[in-house]
Amino acid sequence: MTNFNTALAAIAAEVDAVIDGLLPTPDGDERRLADAMRYSVLGPGKRLRPFLVAVSADLFGVPRARSLRVGAALECVHAYSLVHDDLPAMDDDDLRRGRPTTHKAFDEATAILAGDALQALAFEILAEEATHPDAGVRVGLVRELARGAGLAGMCGGQALDLSAGRGSYDFGGIARLERLKTGALIAFACEAGAILGQASGRARAALFAYAMDVGFAFQIADDLLDHEGDEAAMGKRLRKDDAAGKATVVSLLGLEGARAEAARLVAQGVAHLEQFGSAADLLRETAAFVIERRR
Amino acid sequence: MTNFNTALAAIAAEVDAVIDGLLPTPDGDERRLADAMRYSVLGPGKRLRPFLVAVSADLFGVPRARSLRVGAALECVHAYSLVHDDLPAMDDDDLRRGRPTTHKAFDEATAILAGDALQALAFEILAEEATHPDAGVRVGLVRELARGAGLAGMCGGQALDLSAGRGSYDFGGIARLERLKTGALIAFACEAGAILGQASGRARAALFAYAMDVGFAFQIADDLLDHEGDEAAMGKRLRKDDAAGKATVVSLLGLEGARAEAARLVAQGVAHLEQFGSAADLLRETAAFVIERRR
Repeated sequence: MTNFNTALAAIAAEVDAVIDGLLPTPDGDERRLADAMRYSVLGPGKRLRPFLVAVSADLFGVPRARSLRVGAALECVHAYSLVHDDLPAMDDDDLRRGRPTTHKAFDEATAILAGDALQALAFEILAEEATHPDAGVRVGLVRELARGAGLAGMCGGQALDLSAGRGSYDFGGIARLERLKTGALIAFACEAGAILGQASGRARAALFAYAMDVGFAFQIADDLLDHEGDEAAMGKRLRKDDAAGKATVVSLLGLEGARAEAARLVAQGVAHLEQFGSAADLLRETAAFVIERRR
Repeated sequence: MTNFNTALAAIAAEVDAVIDGLLPTPDGDERRLADAMRYSVLGPGKRLRPFLVAVSADLFGVPRARSLRVGAALECVHAYSLVHDDLPAMDDDDLRRGRPTTHKAFDEATAILAGDALQALAFEILAEEATHPDAGVRVGLVRELARGAGLAGMCGGQALDLSAGRGSYDFGGIARLERLKTGALIAFACEAGAILGQASGRARAALFAYAMDVGFAFQIADDLLDHEGDEAAMGKRLRKDDAAGKATVVSLLGLEGARAEAARLVAQGVAHLEQFGSAADLLRETAAFVIERRR
């Protein structure tokens, strides 16, 4: 995995530099809001979603300057969702990746606004000409990100997670929840590579299917870490779902069953990559990584 | 003003029908979130922003089917900002236009998510082909709405309103706050008409300048209503800024001074419309309306 880990770290550093350059630094009293946006999006993290954008776009020879901008936009949406999910009215978390959550480091009102402004920034980045010279490509990215982030994607998934019926979900219910809550944006990451590369519908569909499978496997791995992990090493509160009596893939299938399901999903996801040959090896390593990671 | 009031009501009904058709009605447990989105965006209201989009776009012969979609997207952003501003961590309001605010009618988590999903929906609407056949027009709308909604616009203005320095703002500080908090989106409304109509830079700049002046006059009128209005007629809590010791245009200039400033802004705004001749009469009536309205 050395090649993979090196590539992941390199792209994380590159996308952080792009995000840093795109975040405004105003002089007025709105500076505190800008600081909260920066704190939220440039905190520690793997930058898995920007990595998937860049590696998928590489398949089609897309210049990194373009794919990193899309990765930056996607990371803004991912970061905003974490800021809002951590709020007292939602999951009420004080710690995220070992640091105070945004509403703890600043205040609740600033955290709500920072999330809102990060979402707007994401669409602004996608809409600018530097993302792609073809307006049709840019507006296609906007449409897919908006769909993945909204009611039919991430927000809808979070609503399911908070819903009254959530306690009694079966495996199909959990799978749908995860596909919406995190799958939609992970699928966008890979699909964005194909959109940037103006790839064939067949290539785009394959990347989408790969990402949906791997995204669900990623969530199951998250569940496993939640059950087996160490709070200090993970830098956040664990086993909240158990405490709240919420069904998860692990509670429904058991530890061994969940591990087997994740491995099955990874194999199924990787099978979609056949048309790309060895060019997609980094995506294959990514799939392996998501179930082997320790944090 | 009969012509104006009739036109305002007609466009409000038309845009509500468009919004109603664009809001999804899912069957699953995310239905509650969809209901909260609908409650937030289709509540009572003048729909002034969609009206400005439609009337500005009319100057260039833009089909209403297009301008109403942009109006619908803008109303989604406006509605989300009200939902988030009303939250306990922000302005903590229980009542909005005579109805419980979204977090009171549903719950805080659902209100946060409904705002988030409405913002995503706005960009999805703009990005779809039905908004304009030219992708360059659609992506231009996305970029300007994102700028107007983000740190350099609405979110930045709300941050100024909540900032520690807010209490001691002078007239210039208040003017900047209002230009960001509400002016940016009102300016987008008029500018969007020019973008949809692929109008000249001169026409677009005139509409932008008109809207910035009228938008600020609108906020001063809001301040005046806040000082002189009746809570029952207005359907919301009044005189909060006074209670919080916040400077407003009225507290800085007095009632008469504020009225004079609003009238001056309206005259200045209307002067920008000269190039459009009598075709812009509805925009002139709108400018008069914003300082004459009683709620």
